[in-house]
Amino acid sequence: MHEADLVLSGNWRAAAKLISRIECGDESVTPVLQRLYANGARLPVLGVTGPPGAGKSTIVDQLIGRCRASGHRVAVLAIDPSSPITGGAILGDRIRMAAHSADPGVFIRSMASRGRLGGLAAAVGNSLIVLDAMGVDRIVVETVGVGQSEIDISRHAQTILLVQTPTGGDHIQAIKAGLLDIGDVYAVNKADTVGADRMVSALRESVEFRCGRNGGESWQPPIIKTQAIDGTGVDELIDAIEAHRRHFVAHPEQLAQLLRSQARALLIEQVTEAMQNRYSQHGGELERLEGWLDEIIARRCHPYAAAWMLLHGREPGSIPIIQ
Amino acid sequence: MHEADLVLSGNWRAAAKLISRIECGDESVTPVLQRLYANGARLPVLGVTGPPGAGKSTIVDQLIGRCRASGHRVAVLAIDPSSPITGGAILGDRIRMAAHSADPGVFIRSMASRGRLGGLAAAVGNSLIVLDAMGVDRIVVETVGVGQSEIDISRHAQTILLVQTPTGGDHIQAIKAGLLDIGDVYAVNKADTVGADRMVSALRESVEFRCGRNGGESWQPPIIKTQAIDGTGVDELIDAIEAHRRHFVAHPEQLAQLLRSQARALLIEQVTEAMQNRYSQHGGELERLEGWLDEIIARRCHPYAAAWMLLHGREPGSIPIIQ
Repeated sequence: MHEADLVLSGNWRAAAKLISRIECGDESVTPVLQRLYANGARLPVLGVTGPPGAGKSTIVDQLIGRCRASGHRVAVLAIDPSSPITGGAILGDRIRMAAHSADPGVFIRSMASRGRLGGLAAAVGNSLIVLDAMGVDRIVVETVGVGQSEIDISRHAQTILLVQTPTGGDHIQAIKAGLLDIGDVYAVNKADTVGADRMVSALRESVEFRCGRNGGESWQPPIIKTQAIDGTGVDELIDAIEAHRRHFVAHPEQLAQLLRSQARALLIEQVTEAMQNRYSQHGGELERLEGWLDEIIARRCHPYAAAWMLLHGREPGSIPIIQ
Repeated sequence: MHEADLVLSGNWRAAAKLISRIECGDESVTPVLQRLYANGARLPVLGVTGPPGAGKSTIVDQLIGRCRASGHRVAVLAIDPSSPITGGAILGDRIRMAAHSADPGVFIRSMASRGRLGGLAAAVGNSLIVLDAMGVDRIVVETVGVGQSEIDISRHAQTILLVQTPTGGDHIQAIKAGLLDIGDVYAVNKADTVGADRMVSALRESVEFRCGRNGGESWQPPIIKTQAIDGTGVDELIDAIEAHRRHFVAHPEQLAQLLRSQARALLIEQVTEAMQNRYSQHGGELERLEGWLDEIIARRCHPYAAAWMLLHGREPGSIPIIQ
């Protein structure tokens, strides 16, 4: 059987192997992906993001549990930002995967972002195409979206659950990352700790500021206090996530607009990344960049002229010096 | 006399005309800029940034006053983010310019960011080359650095003064913009209002977190309370700015590293911008992008394959569909 057909027939082992090939940057997956993309279920993707330690994994575990209780099969893609030195989150994911390994209705795939030079965004997007084709009922992508995250989840998920905690540091990190703007549903987790209400009101302020600019037809993001560790608030969270899905069913033009803007962002991201890679990978282009930097530092060429030269493939030192 | 020589001889009228040509996107300025860049004073640039309403303009006015009192000549480039509708900041700058117009030792140039499609970063960088060549003692660039600012001042200034106010909204906006990370000197302006100490401690926390990761040779950004309206704290502010300059004199390798990384960021920014412009301006490339979006939405081509096609100049619909 053709590889794509195996995935489409619900062979999760084939899906896992395909994702491994995507991770390796194997370009022979392209025709397979093309076929999966054309024939996938077109499920909406739930993105779960928030700062490290906010409890995303615990919340995702709770969501998996509720999905399974409703008889739904679920696929999770966890983007793992852990450093190769601490390895913390990798270990955590292995423990989680082991806990669900006996359940044939749960597919969890971890993807490391460490040690990569570009290409993660494409690997995530392509892996989601695989998850969409393998016959599950729900797709979740989980990522630390803080600071210099390599993955902009808003390009991949149609519903974003932003998990926060009441503590000040996380608050600052979250605001800094512009995270407050991207949530469709907010969870203030560890809601029994000090500062939960302050966090809720900070989020509410941010949400009202944003929604005030939109029309009356726009989605109003709910903010829900949770204690994922014992499941408090998780039912309300699932209701809110499902309500967001129904909002798109009721407003298909909003979904169409979102999908088009996500596709546009992905395309421009890929084109830009391809250009930047030319100047950050070893080889001719990087050396040319460094050569033009020497010209700029020595004041032999001004920066914008150097950019033009670089764009047009000129070698450093190839212009007459005007003094 | 050659245009560049006029600027280099201190003819500010020639400098102003040259900046106007830069603003218009006149490409014939390139050889003139090349000459100015080779022969400029190589002054460090002071960047002043912060959220709207923080009092940047008032602080810059105070800095101008102290510069003049020390007999220094000063050039200011103010990037104006005002909308064409409100026009607020433009008006404010006109008033300021009028106030200094009688002083031959002050050159203030306002540059509007509204209504542009790219190119502002280059216009700012090129204008700073002109300011550096016209024989002043101090160069200041003032910009609103909040949110989706088009100008990343950290690519243009060697000393960044970040102006904040105690109020909550500004605080959130500033953190969100990642501004807390870029300051070399911090001013908490309107220090007589509620929340000033909270703002100072939030900044101190952020600074300590950042500097804790660097070595002992690194600059420790001071945080200074000011009331720019009556000049309180401005002397301390100037001392801190001058101390940062002396830090670079004492650590020339740090300055060299900064200049090189700024040049690298500028080059990559320009190259990327040129690429993105291809897909955002009317004409063949934009139409091709939209055509590929149609293919993606209709599931005839998956996004990453479309990016490859786009990069290689393929027309939408040019590939056989694999079902």
